[in-house]
Amino acid sequence: MPALLPTDFTARITWLGRVANRDAALKSESLQAAQIVFGGIEGEAHGGVTRLSCSRVLSQYPRNTVIANVRQFSVVSAQDLAMIADAMGVERLDPAWLGASICLDGLPDLTSLPPSSRLQAPSGATLVVDMENRPCMLPAKEIEAIYPGKGKAFKAAAQRRRGVTAWVEAEGALSVGDEMRLHIPDQPVWPHLEAARAGASK
Amino acid sequence: MPALLPTDFTARITWLGRVANRDAALKSESLQAAQIVFGGIEGEAHGGVTRLSCSRVLSQYPRNTVIANVRQFSVVSAQDLAMIADAMGVERLDPAWLGASICLDGLPDLTSLPPSSRLQAPSGATLVVDMENRPCMLPAKEIEAIYPGKGKAFKAAAQRRRGVTAWVEAEGALSVGDEMRLHIPDQPVWPHLEAARAGASK
Repeated sequence: MPALLPTDFTARITWLGRVANRDAALKSESLQAAQIVFGGIEGEAHGGVTRLSCSRVLSQYPRNTVIANVRQFSVVSAQDLAMIADAMGVERLDPAWLGASICLDGLPDLTSLPPSSRLQAPSGATLVVDMENRPCMLPAKEIEAIYPGKGKAFKAAAQRRRGVTAWVEAEGALSVGDEMRLHIPDQPVWPHLEAARAGASK
Repeated sequence: MPALLPTDFTARITWLGRVANRDAALKSESLQAAQIVFGGIEGEAHGGVTRLSCSRVLSQYPRNTVIANVRQFSVVSAQDLAMIADAMGVERLDPAWLGASICLDGLPDLTSLPPSSRLQAPSGATLVVDMENRPCMLPAKEIEAIYPGKGKAFKAAAQRRRGVTAWVEAEGALSVGDEMRLHIPDQPVWPHLEAARAGASK
């Protein structure tokens, strides 16, 4: 039996976006549809099959090491964004303000989706989930511009709700309204996972 | 805090190998050292940044779809191989007969290592674990040649002990004797994992 198993869990794409120039702003522009290719959405500043390593992986790599790019997509969930907004006391959070690529509706606890799971669109376009994304301070500026005084509240409110990062396993089209199906590694949880997390050297 | 966490778990490379021509035989040739590049070990028949999809992912892709190659490496553990040999009633199993790329000694329950975990060598060479590898019948022929009558026992004996598949996140050198460190996604288990596995559509 194959190790990658289709599940009955699906989610609808409610929003698609692209960051054209990350030096100008984190904010992404919204799209109705996008072609995804190996490396990401065409024209995405976070795209590319490889990238230069950043502060997030300093425990693994000296800064600016050429590594595979598993951060081609920032995938967030409508449910998580609503909970973050609630915790911040603001009306709503636009995925664009977070520099997101895809917002999905319908997958519970999206931020803890199994690493190496796949999200597949009807076109065959498929993303590999790398792991949880961790909130940074960059969205604060975008949020502050809309809700003065609220930006700083983002990082704490977004803990465990910031979505996941993902990269392209198979090319194809994505459109707002598409249902993506979740495929998961069909394997038991590693028996030493909690011990490894607790004893992890920094 | 970054989501990818170094752990205190390490394993020693006891064997390195490469399959030069998969049409000729599954068997791999052993190496004392290897340079790994994006796509895998140079000269490896299972290498390449992309590959044509096979029967293992027919639930996701029509055969021969171009997809990212997450099967650049077959990583097995010395402990698993000893247990498989014991279950088969043979003296030993050589990683070469399984077409393995790397045999590691010291990581408990290697076959269920967390998906998206990383194995990093002292050179900086780093592999991303995709997921459990599932045993097929191909090693039977190699084993049969050494232990007549035993080949067919491999597939059943190797359930949950066949190791993991992996691919290159960062280039560098690997040598027999190197200690590789395990880095894991620092996130909770998805609350719906067992429900998804139980209800998974085939």
